[in-house]
Amino acid sequence: MISVAIVGASGYTGLELLRLLSYHPEVEVTTITSRELAGKCLSEVYGFSGKFASLIFEEPDPEVICKKAQAVFLCLPAGKSQEMARIFLENDLKVIDLSADFRFKNLEVYQKTYKIEHKFPELAQKAVYGLPEIYGEEIKEASLIGNPGCYPTSVLIPLIPLLMEGLIEKEEIIVDSKSGTSGAGRKAENYYSFCEVNEDFKAYKVADHRHTPEMEEKLSQFAGTSIRLIFTPHLLPVNRGIFSTIYVKFRASLNRVYEYLRDFYKDKPFVEVLSLGRYPRISEVRGTNFCKFSLFEDKERGRGIILSVIDNLVKGASGQAIQNLNLIMGLPEDLGLPKSPLFV
Amino acid sequence: MISVAIVGASGYTGLELLRLLSYHPEVEVTTITSRELAGKCLSEVYGFSGKFASLIFEEPDPEVICKKAQAVFLCLPAGKSQEMARIFLENDLKVIDLSADFRFKNLEVYQKTYKIEHKFPELAQKAVYGLPEIYGEEIKEASLIGNPGCYPTSVLIPLIPLLMEGLIEKEEIIVDSKSGTSGAGRKAENYYSFCEVNEDFKAYKVADHRHTPEMEEKLSQFAGTSIRLIFTPHLLPVNRGIFSTIYVKFRASLNRVYEYLRDFYKDKPFVEVLSLGRYPRISEVRGTNFCKFSLFEDKERGRGIILSVIDNLVKGASGQAIQNLNLIMGLPEDLGLPKSPLFV
Amino acid sequence: MISVAIVGASGYTGLELLRLLSYHPEVEVTTITSRELAGKCLSEVYGFSGKFASLIFEEPDPEVICKKAQAVFLCLPAGKSQEMARIFLENDLKVIDLSADFRFKNLEVYQKTYKIEHKFPELAQKAVYGLPEIYGEEIKEASLIGNPGCYPTSVLIPLIPLLMEGLIEKEEIIVDSKSGTSGAGRKAENYYSFCEVNEDFKAYKVADHRHTPEMEEKLSQFAGTSIRLIFTPHLLPVNRGIFSTIYVKFRASLNRVYEYLRDFYKDKPFVEVLSLGRYPRISEVRGTNFCKFSLFEDKERGRGIILSVIDNLVKGASGQAIQNLNLIMGLPEDLGLPKSPLFV
Amino acid sequence: MISVAIVGASGYTGLELLRLLSYHPEVEVTTITSRELAGKCLSEVYGFSGKFASLIFEEPDPEVICKKAQAVFLCLPAGKSQEMARIFLENDLKVIDLSADFRFKNLEVYQKTYKIEHKFPELAQKAVYGLPEIYGEEIKEASLIGNPGCYPTSVLIPLIPLLMEGLIEKEEIIVDSKSGTSGAGRKAENYYSFCEVNEDFKAYKVADHRHTPEMEEKLSQFAGTSIRLIFTPHLLPVNRGIFSTIYVKFRASLNRVYEYLRDFYKDKPFVEVLSLGRYPRISEVRGTNFCKFSLFEDKERGRGIILSVIDNLVKGASGQAIQNLNLIMGLPEDLGLPKSPLFV
Repeated sequence: MISVAIVGASGYTGLELLRLLSYHPEVEVTTITSRELAGKCLSEVYGFSGKFASLIFEEPDPEVICKKAQAVFLCLPAGKSQEMARIFLENDLKVIDLSADFRFKNLEVYQKTYKIEHKFPELAQKAVYGLPEIYGEEIKEASLIGNPGCYPTSVLIPLIPLLMEGLIEKEEIIVDSKSGTSGAGRKAENYYSFCEVNEDFKAYKVADHRHTPEMEEKLSQFAGTSIRLIFTPHLLPVNRGIFSTIYVKFRASLNRVYEYLRDFYKDKPFVEVLSLGRYPRISEVRGTNFCKFSLFEDKERGRGIILSVIDNLVKGASGQAIQNLNLIMGLPEDLGLPKSPLFV
Repeated sequence: MISVAIVGASGYTGLELLRLLSYHPEVEVTTITSRELAGKCLSEVYGFSGKFASLIFEEPDPEVICKKAQAVFLCLPAGKSQEMARIFLENDLKVIDLSADFRFKNLEVYQKTYKIEHKFPELAQKAVYGLPEIYGEEIKEASLIGNPGCYPTSVLIPLIPLLMEGLIEKEEIIVDSKSGTSGAGRKAENYYSFCEVNEDFKAYKVADHRHTPEMEEKLSQFAGTSIRLIFTPHLLPVNRGIFSTIYVKFRASLNRVYEYLRDFYKDKPFVEVLSLGRYPRISEVRGTNFCKFSLFEDKERGRGIILSVIDNLVKGASGQAIQNLNLIMGLPEDLGLPKSPLFV
Repeated sequence: MISVAIVGASGYTGLELLRLLSYHPEVEVTTITSRELAGKCLSEVYGFSGKFASLIFEEPDPEVICKKAQAVFLCLPAGKSQEMARIFLENDLKVIDLSADFRFKNLEVYQKTYKIEHKFPELAQKAVYGLPEIYGEEIKEASLIGNPGCYPTSVLIPLIPLLMEGLIEKEEIIVDSKSGTSGAGRKAENYYSFCEVNEDFKAYKVADHRHTPEMEEKLSQFAGTSIRLIFTPHLLPVNRGIFSTIYVKFRASLNRVYEYLRDFYKDKPFVEVLSLGRYPRISEVRGTNFCKFSLFEDKERGRGIILSVIDNLVKGASGQAIQNLNLIMGLPEDLGLPKSPLFV
Repeated sequence: MISVAIVGASGYTGLELLRLLSYHPEVEVTTITSRELAGKCLSEVYGFSGKFASLIFEEPDPEVICKKAQAVFLCLPAGKSQEMARIFLENDLKVIDLSADFRFKNLEVYQKTYKIEHKFPELAQKAVYGLPEIYGEEIKEASLIGNPGCYPTSVLIPLIPLLMEGLIEKEEIIVDSKSGTSGAGRKAENYYSFCEVNEDFKAYKVADHRHTPEMEEKLSQFAGTSIRLIFTPHLLPVNRGIFSTIYVKFRASLNRVYEYLRDFYKDKPFVEVLSLGRYPRISEVRGTNFCKFSLFEDKERGRGIILSVIDNLVKGASGQAIQNLNLIMGLPEDLGLPKSPLFV
């Protein structure tokens, strides 16, 4: 049994970690922290039930955590993970950080994007970007993981292999993404209130979203040149799910592209390249750690269209974090992670 | 043209007043106030468009309002309307108060229910309860209206005539109501956030809701004896609409009850007693000022079941307030009020 | 490993069985049947993924099934299970029937309610009503289970012990239930289309629902006298979840009732009696096999109010069916069944 | 008073025409037809109430209609309007066709797109495309209107003036649109059932939607060259609303583009170019005849992003049809059409 702690467990990603880990056969959660909820029992909060229902939120105290955990998930806002990660690493814990603090290699971009100074550049360089389908080998050896953003997960999985293989043009990539509202976290704001999300649909942070530079850094790494991305996020009136519509220009036939990707991902337990003609839906990944995508082509007009879906709380956050934990701990990559969706 | 002011116009009932009045041929809105939004233009807020889009929110200043309005709608929290109403009445404005401040005759009950002292008991006695189908004649002569609560509107319309006529037992009345989330007002709380209302359903304030004594006072008045009501409100994951399922015991045949109610409401423009066997739906009243209800009977088990629907923002608040204004001002009761629903 | 077949696997309860069983450590699904989908692979249908994704729907052929399964789940319309059950029982399979065919002991009531003749009355008498919290000992010895209706599950769990112990009056029980739309099954009808359920709320089959006699039979058995129930079902604009608001009259103090129920259910893995004052929500049981309920009292008005929630597809159907399978097969009652909810 | 008939009034656009016309001061509806609902009263169907509640659906009989109407709205499937239009025109009725039959000038494209032969090419040439903001002058003189598709309306309003003025490149235009489910019409299919739309999001007809050639024809007309468009439609889990995210390349500064469009549309009652930085939302146009859009720029990456919203049932169908009627009949363009949204 591996013992883990969750720091900042009061939000939706923390809660989802607890849900998912409660079904994991090799993980025990020993500490959950939350300044806001310290002293409260998990069963009181959101009516949580199951294996961990009697856990009690504690004030975050690294010393206590280090005694009881081999690995720690950090579910903190950007900027707040840096120091925490350092402490846990010094105490030989494995650290999986769900914030943006360890996603970037280019810290100037991080600092410009998040308006936060990075205090531990050497840690940032040591950290591995936690996208297991691409960085799996490095993750196995890592002690510090920068768990990817939700949008980037849905976009990088289809695009990285295509850029590696030169199967798409490096220019004119446009990503139009739609995210369920849980992606915004647990926020008491009118903007996210039921009456102002339900029956509505809205774009936000057009040409200004913080996941754009994250995607660009990773894509550029594999393209061998600087990739720029037009990225537009929208808020969907659903709880969970990301749907990314990606516009590219294929440099090979649709069939060739399809077969290459099928082959590239054939051993990956959580990626499904749909048969040509099939449409992905966010309901098909709800509650699971899958990324599913399909390829279309407007031949007359010379464009490829990729439709990619994930559950933002699972593959886009907590599930992927557990997939990373599995790899770090030498467990089967897919251990304890859900694959059968709540279609309805 | 009648000139009106809306005090406390930043919430959903204020906004709905503006939407409805923008289609009213005889009303001009001269002032809208909001401490929070003072200085802002209505078109900036919620992207409001149409006739009143260029109105600007002002700090509430009774003196200014009195100069520009013949009538005023008060959309303020309980307790805040008392003093405002007094000032406007002294200046000969008609006052339609959407809070609970002028709904009660028994001020002990008001004080116990709202934990607020009533400073103007004589005004409370002078005020008329703004349910036009029942108190229409008094409303025409009134200068101060206590506009009914949303739940009470859906319940009193079917029950008052039945109690007047002795067609139901006075005991064992149970009301199980379900309200759209806009009924809670515009609130930045996790409890009302999209992710915690959508795909959820919850009861609240069981055996403790403030509309219970309001309903009991009005029902008792017509029953000639003290009526007690079991009332359970629930939160529906829809924006608008109240659905009340009311359990009674008929003292006459279903047909007799039905015909009596059809007759009772035959000249009322906003009440529809559905044909026996037809089911009301909240979609059938969406955006309109209707209360529609139908009657069922479980003959074997000796119970009548009444299903009653309204749009909580229209007949349950702002639409009914305008219906009251029409009556006070000597206009046709239904002038400018919507009857055709947004079924979809 | 136990091998099971699912007959009539194309609907939502079949799909949910597959989802749940894919996480069960001791069950293998060997056959899934559907006339409509015969020849299709599960992965094509609803984009199902995970352990059973490559299963192929077959025409229902009892002979084939009998060779490959020790137990069978019947997800067929009322009337269609009778003959199927007989065949499988003769071949020594355990049968868990999700239709109403084996829920009733009084077959006159069954016949009157479902307008279907019962061809195997002796089987109906032999069948055990699959509510494990109440009939657990008999289920362990049974070969034929009549899996309870979804509404009855949410109602019987709180009410049976109270009637057994005489803690509520036997008269004037009123049940006001609200169900997610998946409870209607997979139906291509305008009544269940998105635009006519979303933002709507409607009652149906008032005083005429087929679950009323089912509940009455079971309650009467434990009350020692005939119990009549007023029952009103409503359609909620959510995918999953049942919320039952139950009006009773307590014959003891709220505390006494609460403690009795806590004690009654203390060893039951899937029942949670919430602490006094806490409200259940359907989100707290989403995706799980729990029934959670809480007790309220309107002391002034002399009524108890019980709020009970389940996930209609899990505890209300497929999860409970698996719980029954576990018991029949001598496995731990809660093996492989989810307890941690998808709160969001 | 103008008397109009609605042929094919049983679907959502027919119903929306009735809702909107019930608030129109100068229009009387004399006939509504529906083969499916012939003989039924509008009040029975969808619980419709208001001015037209007592109208009765009739079998479509052109002779009868011609006697009672000056203008007719055709709400028929593609291909079914051709003959109907001819008959009504011969009888001197004005015809507003909501199908695609009279939207195209290039009938080869029509035939290829809809797989339907066009029997009256001369009528197609005579017909005016009913986008009043662009074709207003011709509409005033027309007797036959091809009312635009819903997606095209949201796209053409921002794009046509930009192409006319040469303010965007003619290549690389990408349109990513999301539509509320009412856009699919009233359909009893699992694909549109509540459980399979709610909490889901899906693309459809990628690179193959019939509105693409419609948009291309109109854009090409104003660009002076053939315009190709990449267009991807998606199904939103809301009842009403279209949101189009349009990717272009500006050939002038954002400010210049903005000012040009503000000026272009300054006298148009139903187009609002939002101030720079403001985001449109579908809730801001719900129930109204507005098209609102705003302009963004990703300067670093050289792309303009236009966000455009309409209510698909109003500006995208029935409201625009009435706007066309107003113009044809010499009434004020905006007479009787709603401008204040149901924001909640």
